[in-house]
Amino acid sequence: MFNVLQKSSKARLGLLQTAHGEIQTPFFMPIATSGAIKGLTMEEIKELGGQIVLSNTYHLHLRPGEDLVEKAGGLHKFMNWDGPILTDSGGYQVFSLSKIRKLKADGVEFQSHLDGSTIFLTPEKAIEIQMKLGSDIIMVLDECPGANEDRKYVEKSLKLTTEWATRCQTFFNEKRRDALQCVSTNGVEPHLFGIVQGGMHPNLRKQSAEELVEIGFDGYAIGGLSVGEPNEVMYKMTEATVPYLPEDKPRYLMGVGTPENILESVERGIDMFDCVLPTRNARHGHMFTSQGVVRLKRADYKDDFTPLDPNCDCHTCKNYTKAYLRHLFISGEILSLRLNTLHNVAFYLRLMSDIRKAIKEDRFDEFKEEFLKNYVS
Amino acid sequence: MFNVLQKSSKARLGLLQTAHGEIQTPFFMPIATSGAIKGLTMEEIKELGGQIVLSNTYHLHLRPGEDLVEKAGGLHKFMNWDGPILTDSGGYQVFSLSKIRKLKADGVEFQSHLDGSTIFLTPEKAIEIQMKLGSDIIMVLDECPGANEDRKYVEKSLKLTTEWATRCQTFFNEKRRDALQCVSTNGVEPHLFGIVQGGMHPNLRKQSAEELVEIGFDGYAIGGLSVGEPNEVMYKMTEATVPYLPEDKPRYLMGVGTPENILESVERGIDMFDCVLPTRNARHGHMFTSQGVVRLKRADYKDDFTPLDPNCDCHTCKNYTKAYLRHLFISGEILSLRLNTLHNVAFYLRLMSDIRKAIKEDRFDEFKEEFLKNYVS
Repeated sequence: MFNVLQKSSKARLGLLQTAHGEIQTPFFMPIATSGAIKGLTMEEIKELGGQIVLSNTYHLHLRPGEDLVEKAGGLHKFMNWDGPILTDSGGYQVFSLSKIRKLKADGVEFQSHLDGSTIFLTPEKAIEIQMKLGSDIIMVLDECPGANEDRKYVEKSLKLTTEWATRCQTFFNEKRRDALQCVSTNGVEPHLFGIVQGGMHPNLRKQSAEELVEIGFDGYAIGGLSVGEPNEVMYKMTEATVPYLPEDKPRYLMGVGTPENILESVERGIDMFDCVLPTRNARHGHMFTSQGVVRLKRADYKDDFTPLDPNCDCHTCKNYTKAYLRHLFISGEILSLRLNTLHNVAFYLRLMSDIRKAIKEDRFDEFKEEFLKNYVS
Repeated sequence: MFNVLQKSSKARLGLLQTAHGEIQTPFFMPIATSGAIKGLTMEEIKELGGQIVLSNTYHLHLRPGEDLVEKAGGLHKFMNWDGPILTDSGGYQVFSLSKIRKLKADGVEFQSHLDGSTIFLTPEKAIEIQMKLGSDIIMVLDECPGANEDRKYVEKSLKLTTEWATRCQTFFNEKRRDALQCVSTNGVEPHLFGIVQGGMHPNLRKQSAEELVEIGFDGYAIGGLSVGEPNEVMYKMTEATVPYLPEDKPRYLMGVGTPENILESVERGIDMFDCVLPTRNARHGHMFTSQGVVRLKRADYKDDFTPLDPNCDCHTCKNYTKAYLRHLFISGEILSLRLNTLHNVAFYLRLMSDIRKAIKEDRFDEFKEEFLKNYVS
């Protein structure tokens, strides 16, 4: 289901089979939190070269609910996307969105951020929801400690994460044949990925990786990073994990990151990324371009009648000037959210495509150096 | 510059020449207030059969300012639209948006709703701004009395409106040759339209129409309607005006209206419409369909997996269900604004296209009857 086709230093070009087609790694997943990319259609994601999107189990469970999505024929049909979907387990949102949460051995109790109702999420429930959604890549439920938790807390949390990973796998194996929602066109079944935790402690990262590999998953994520720690710590934790993951399984660095973060992590052997940055920053007029970050509110752009990024062929860059995009942003126009998001997603997807091309031509290091030379963050 | 090609009862099919191409009447103008349709691109407007859009002088004057738009090469280039643009004079927004306004013989002083600064708009200034924007159809500055003003006020207001119309025309004739912004591809110059006022008084409407025709304009608008009066009053005022307007000039009912309003007004000889209804209502989940209004928030649609309008071939209706559109709307997704607006604009533009077809085939009355039979408002 996963083949590394080529390496350039430690950067890997791979092919991942999913129930909704095969996709090339390294890839970036635009985020369709509640079953929609903020402001873009799925056709646009496809046209921009998007191969796979990420949806959030936590949000979809709260609204409209996995039963409704199942009744609609699954998430692919509901949101009009025939490519693969990765769903997270909801664990991270319980940690980041819910003000009240109680961690128990059996699962996690939390209050909905929408209506305050109490919800109990177990490892089995997290898998069941994702199966009902019809996900192609299902994530185990994990516990994500904050960046500043002490070692004792992280050790305890890690124990729970490993126990839950085992329970998720057991449940997944029992139910995978029933996962009728996921209409596989190619005989490939949904995948289950484990999530390495261990906080900012290299030896706990190693322990977590080894325990998960012992259980055995279709792929391995590195979770609990990009939670406020310095970039160097993120890279160090990645380095402390990757050597203990199997060569023949995809590696997914969750919630990462900036263009620099992605390049540094691909260099360390990571294959998969997701992040809210391109979509969220777009809504704040924070634009990613080949020359670095452009902040649209800046007065400099008031009468700048050049395109946002001269090296970009997206609809936004081909048809509008920075002066117009600034005007839309300042005026709070809905079209601003749309055009900005379109460009930022186009930028990220092109970066991934360029990365794959560079690995294929065994010049990843040169590509990275050249890219960062021009890029002012 | 305007030819009536065919009539069906009093409904007219016509051809209007503009500096940005010829367009068929009756038409509806989607509103690009600040130089953008809320959530849609101009390419989409064109694909949906949009022939002309309306932009607001008041908004563009305040932000980004007509000088910037002129520097950008005119509004067409700024907002990426090569079809005709009609701009209003700003008079209506001074009346509806500014809390403080002082009417003077020379013009109107008002406070910007954006930053509270004092702005003085004269008939000449209104024309100058529209010329700098590069408008294809320029509107005179008028004074729009509220629906409940007494006759004495309306008489006084009408006197001012006629005086201002004269001044607008004088200024327009002096400056039209300098209007370099409007790059005519076909030798056609920008048009100047007069605006009939007169409140809810039929004989003042007649007087206003006659005075304006005496001055002589390229087209005639009926203003000051759709300001809260009952539909029957709107139709009566239209009937009190149309007979005094020349047959060979286009007639524009400003700010109107619902699908019923449009049908009733075409029947009374109106050729041009604009209204915020399709775009604004879309943002409130109030959808226009061939079967009538659909309010997306209704629980009925929670698990309704049929298209919004089975008789619509827009992107929204072809790709999504009511259940999904409801989910997006309830969740406050940006994509909801976009997909809803796309459909409502598609609906209005198709209605106009169907109206033109019915007139051409001399079956307007039957078309109107059939449409309203199916339409539940």
